[in-house]
Amino acid sequence: MPKHPKLSLLLTGNELMAGDIVDSNSAMIAQMTQALGCPIFYKATVGDDLDLLSHEITRIAEFSDVLIVNGGLGPTIDDLTAEALANVMGVALEEQPQALQQLERWCESKRISLNAANRKQVILPQGIELIANATGSAPGFSAMVRNCKVICTPGVPSELKHMFRDEILPNLDISKNAQVKRYRLRVFGMGESGIQTLVKKHIANWPTEIELGFRASLPMLEVKLQAQNKSDYPALEQCLAQVKGLLGDHIVTEDHRVISAVVKDLLIEKQQTITFAESCTGGLIAANLTEIAGASAVFEAGFVTYSNAMKQALVNVSDASLRQHGAVSEPVVREMLSGALLKTNANIGVAVSGVAGPSGGSNEKPVGTVWIAWGTATHAKAHCFYFPVDRKRFQILVAAVAFDLVRRELLGINEQAIYFKERTFKPRH
Amino acid sequence: MPKHPKLSLLLTGNELMAGDIVDSNSAMIAQMTQALGCPIFYKATVGDDLDLLSHEITRIAEFSDVLIVNGGLGPTIDDLTAEALANVMGVALEEQPQALQQLERWCESKRISLNAANRKQVILPQGIELIANATGSAPGFSAMVRNCKVICTPGVPSELKHMFRDEILPNLDISKNAQVKRYRLRVFGMGESGIQTLVKKHIANWPTEIELGFRASLPMLEVKLQAQNKSDYPALEQCLAQVKGLLGDHIVTEDHRVISAVVKDLLIEKQQTITFAESCTGGLIAANLTEIAGASAVFEAGFVTYSNAMKQALVNVSDASLRQHGAVSEPVVREMLSGALLKTNANIGVAVSGVAGPSGGSNEKPVGTVWIAWGTATHAKAHCFYFPVDRKRFQILVAAVAFDLVRRELLGINEQAIYFKERTFKPRH
Repeated sequence: MPKHPKLSLLLTGNELMAGDIVDSNSAMIAQMTQALGCPIFYKATVGDDLDLLSHEITRIAEFSDVLIVNGGLGPTIDDLTAEALANVMGVALEEQPQALQQLERWCESKRISLNAANRKQVILPQGIELIANATGSAPGFSAMVRNCKVICTPGVPSELKHMFRDEILPNLDISKNAQVKRYRLRVFGMGESGIQTLVKKHIANWPTEIELGFRASLPMLEVKLQAQNKSDYPALEQCLAQVKGLLGDHIVTEDHRVISAVVKDLLIEKQQTITFAESCTGGLIAANLTEIAGASAVFEAGFVTYSNAMKQALVNVSDASLRQHGAVSEPVVREMLSGALLKTNANIGVAVSGVAGPSGGSNEKPVGTVWIAWGTATHAKAHCFYFPVDRKRFQILVAAVAFDLVRRELLGINEQAIYFKERTFKPRH
Repeated sequence: MPKHPKLSLLLTGNELMAGDIVDSNSAMIAQMTQALGCPIFYKATVGDDLDLLSHEITRIAEFSDVLIVNGGLGPTIDDLTAEALANVMGVALEEQPQALQQLERWCESKRISLNAANRKQVILPQGIELIANATGSAPGFSAMVRNCKVICTPGVPSELKHMFRDEILPNLDISKNAQVKRYRLRVFGMGESGIQTLVKKHIANWPTEIELGFRASLPMLEVKLQAQNKSDYPALEQCLAQVKGLLGDHIVTEDHRVISAVVKDLLIEKQQTITFAESCTGGLIAANLTEIAGASAVFEAGFVTYSNAMKQALVNVSDASLRQHGAVSEPVVREMLSGALLKTNANIGVAVSGVAGPSGGSNEKPVGTVWIAWGTATHAKAHCFYFPVDRKRFQILVAAVAFDLVRRELLGINEQAIYFKERTFKPRH
């Protein structure tokens, strides 16, 4: 097994210490190095304090092979990373001609004039190696501090992402030695503990070399299987096949698509169009679909029918059904679905009506109850689920269930998802 | 000015080092302490490694007054915080009867049986002080390490939030001495640099005691003004009045509401109802409104009319307008608005049609162009904006502009927002 370099992070910025921003950069870097089998060994975060920053660079470099310093490269006087590294290296700061050229080109392309503040960004420690910044004005740079490679990177997430992925990561030893192989499965309708229990029960001798990981990717769950070495690839393939067998049709995709994108692609493949009649989700289902580029190929229109009157006026729900069964009922969602299909000529559709809360619940239909109808004009199904969670999460979950039901319908999956068992609404007595 | 205690954080968890989760706990703690005028002084993050964790507790305690350790209190063998603290203190671990009682009550309330794994959570270092956990099974605990108070807290964000806010923060010196006073303004349509430029230009001698801060709260920007001491309150009030004067009607709210919630409350106040006819936002405007509890008081129905045919069928857009001007045009959004108002009997409405991209743009109407119509059946306005950003951000921005235009209409604000100047679409020649 290849030995990992000790990879540490040092983040700097008062905005991190004041809680003004959540640090997403660490996770971004860690995900990229972890994908090569190398997690972050150590991380420290400090404010814009020259002494503390210098002290931490020296200290962490002593026990690390690589230290990524993130932030503090900007044009303001709070940006102290170059000065701190110069302190640590015992060298002077000087304007770097090559960096200045890059900066001039960047200013030109953005049609902004090069001012003194910008120019500060190319005053860097003597002897550093420059790292190109394809998307911003501050160049990155690196230098050896004792036996540790110290790499200074911009704090702006989009700049960091490109620089780390394209300029830094390929030159680290972890890339050169990486034998990591990984599979991801995006799952809907099963939780981490449920999957772990299944795996424990059904896969007797899970090989220790194969890492099983989980990452919340709401409303889906990402299941990762990973091997560090070529010699473990056969075990990885075997575990993958077993896990796939256990998760079955709860696996929505093996790539990065969200569930509405998977459904959009399936609709294109099957040459179908879709519509929605939404009450409790209030437009979220349509919004989830139309956030995907190219949705217009499968979607012409949707209805947000929030009031009873509008359920009648816009999607032909009958007064009788509303009066006899209430808005959250099987007849009403079935009529909403038929009405929406009729008015849009879509092939397939979903209608939802539920109690999102926090108020509006009753003993018979508590907050979290939702009727969903889905299918075609001639073959529609309906079911009542129960998601007793807060309003926003309820809407996100119901939208995801809507897409999952359509996915199952389009794929002709006859078995019901686990959420039919776990989340079916059972009226109280 | 009260001297702040040096407050440090130590986070633990392999999931943090692997990038499986983004650390939001640090920002949550920092926001609460910063609100009392005390930022975090230092932060370190390590994996589930007993030696490293013990080493870091000792090291950071040496230069801190308070050290919050977060994570590692759970029931699994990876949860090492109690053992690490016992190492550092040089004491043994023992089952804490009082903590066990709490745990038993918690299990009872959740109707789960107390097993050995759970019971591990109450095996804690001798001599610690317990901290109640109102929302989870693992108690917090604290002890002095030399002159530093070390406080161990659960990693689950909701548990941490309650415990830190209700049990820990009130007992810290920063609470007892706090004189911090703060105002927040939630602004739409102005950016951080624009506001800073305005402030520099118009407020000659900004007092150094008054902190001006910014926090992105997409699509709005939160502007914070803060004073640390009672003696600075008059200056704070003066700065606040000046900043309010500069930002004017770009201030959407001085509380935590999102822009759709502000509009919902205004509609209730003015006893108006609203509807939407959405093309490029695909339901997002309706979804933003209906994610707010109580939206049904002001919203009966909305239309997602994505195709030209459905713009005609559902909201009465004329074939002539579509053919002569195209779907992204003033006549079409005006007709969409009239049609939606007519069909729903709402008092006020918004209609949007634009090019969200990434494809579908032309020389005349590039990606980012959007026509918006808003107002009532008798008094409608329309304007063409240009937001050349990625699809998702475009949709979020257009939805926010829709709400802001309605807000201005309802408040009778005659002046146009800055985005009319900066974001109006100017056709190329």
